[in-house]
Amino acid sequence: MAIPKNVIVREVGPREGMQIEEAPVSTEEKIRIINMLSECNFPVIEVTSFVSPKWVPKMADAELVAKGFKRNSKTDYQAVYLNAKGIERARETEKFDLEGVLSVTASETFSKKNTNLSIKETFEKMEERIIILNKYNLPVDTVAVMTAFGCIYEGDTNPDKVMRLIARTMEKAESHGKHPKRILLGDTVGWANPISTERLVGMVQNRWPNKDIILHLHDTRGMGMANAYVGLKMGVTHYDTSVGGLGGCPFSGAGKAAGNIATEDLVHMCDELNISTGIDLERLLKVTEEIENILGRQLPSKVAKGGTLNSYRSARK
Amino acid sequence: MAIPKNVIVREVGPREGMQIEEAPVSTEEKIRIINMLSECNFPVIEVTSFVSPKWVPKMADAELVAKGFKRNSKTDYQAVYLNAKGIERARETEKFDLEGVLSVTASETFSKKNTNLSIKETFEKMEERIIILNKYNLPVDTVAVMTAFGCIYEGDTNPDKVMRLIARTMEKAESHGKHPKRILLGDTVGWANPISTERLVGMVQNRWPNKDIILHLHDTRGMGMANAYVGLKMGVTHYDTSVGGLGGCPFSGAGKAAGNIATEDLVHMCDELNISTGIDLERLLKVTEEIENILGRQLPSKVAKGGTLNSYRSARK
Repeated sequence: MAIPKNVIVREVGPREGMQIEEAPVSTEEKIRIINMLSECNFPVIEVTSFVSPKWVPKMADAELVAKGFKRNSKTDYQAVYLNAKGIERARETEKFDLEGVLSVTASETFSKKNTNLSIKETFEKMEERIIILNKYNLPVDTVAVMTAFGCIYEGDTNPDKVMRLIARTMEKAESHGKHPKRILLGDTVGWANPISTERLVGMVQNRWPNKDIILHLHDTRGMGMANAYVGLKMGVTHYDTSVGGLGGCPFSGAGKAAGNIATEDLVHMCDELNISTGIDLERLLKVTEEIENILGRQLPSKVAKGGTLNSYRSARK
Repeated sequence: MAIPKNVIVREVGPREGMQIEEAPVSTEEKIRIINMLSECNFPVIEVTSFVSPKWVPKMADAELVAKGFKRNSKTDYQAVYLNAKGIERARETEKFDLEGVLSVTASETFSKKNTNLSIKETFEKMEERIIILNKYNLPVDTVAVMTAFGCIYEGDTNPDKVMRLIARTMEKAESHGKHPKRILLGDTVGWANPISTERLVGMVQNRWPNKDIILHLHDTRGMGMANAYVGLKMGVTHYDTSVGGLGGCPFSGAGKAAGNIATEDLVHMCDELNISTGIDLERLLKVTEEIENILGRQLPSKVAKGGTLNSYRSARK
């Protein structure tokens, strides 16, 4: 497939990034960041998680954040939830465009550690998940595979296993009359390289040519942008990124996932390759600056430091 | 061309990186870093510059550094020089494997600012340069084009211009019976993207199929590793990198080049793609740690933070 003309960049910084960051961020600051992001015209922003504050204390203010931020009509606002209670909490705020995701983790160990379920149990619970989504009239949009390329506990993920997991999840959905239109490949711990990315994306495209692929990439070992470029070359149209590369711990050791690829670096590369994202990049750089002030540390984004090439081009005019 | 089985990674941190770093680094510290790098079995290390201390005060201790470091017989040690005096200074130390480079800058403005010569004057001086190289029995190895992709003063570089500059330099060399075997494409200010890299590398390969290409990449805007991957895919066998990504200024503004791509990130990607570099990566990560201690700041390298995938794989055994 050819390089796409348009791609959908989903900003996951306020949820995934903030969840990992160690510095405390107040509810007001979270709201300010989301509002600033909204003004950049993202197609999708993942705002927060409606999960147990016991498990994810950083997201205990989900309702307050939801109440506080201002919607931009151009943007879909998503939130993470694990069960009916999470959906109800999110729905009550009337601020979200909830997505229906069926998620499975390719690494048994990572699955148990991260979701407290084995892969077998994940599939057993999936039935229930689909029924809940149905009950709330949520579409089953996306099949997501975490640790799709590898995992710090189990090493390289066999792509055949990923294919089987996707197929099995699709069957579960279809047995309920659902037809997920997207497949998310999550490089949860930054294991993918450009060749493994090309291989797995190619396998998924061959088997499900009519589904959109979402690449969820982490830049743990410096290959995130190369992997994203491989995705673009292959026509992949959906990318998860976080503003500034938020979420990467500067001292991350074993077991700690580094940040997603930085939104502005991907948007800038798209701009340079004539791929439209609809995102206001110069405005986005101000958000990174604001977050760096709040966190009191520099974020890994390169464009935030080097500036956009278009800013140099227009300075010459 | 296919992905190469082996690539030559030239470590330029001690010279190019140190030249940009703002923190003072003592001669002893420089020597310690070079010795630690030598133990990683680099094929080539660029050690220092024999230039006027008036222009480059950071390299005023070139002789002392040269005298102090210990050669590894597996490594070629290079130094930068601009004229006969520089060559003589380097030769006197008896520590170097000097390379003969004919260099030209594609951007007129950058050429004047960086070398104090217009492009026309660069070619006029080239005659003299070749005669000097001859006099000292130095081979004319490399034709180098700086700002080969773009420049903050003049914007995008027309690849046809780069081709003309290379051709003209080759002619100059050949008129003296010299046959440079390598062509260096310098993305001096971090302007290249994967498509412009593919285009220029392809043009050079078509015109000079028997010359090796050196990609000299900077990661100013997060595309350095994607550009390197494009090079690898196209069979490019030579890369300039700096340990840790040394040389990138965390607050670099207009006009200041950010660091080269980080050596360990490229070596790690090569390891993952089954491309041999001969470099001891785990040992290299200790050098980055040492440099971070000396400079008192974190370097941009990702692998230095996230660890190598092989370290996770072998922990499982």
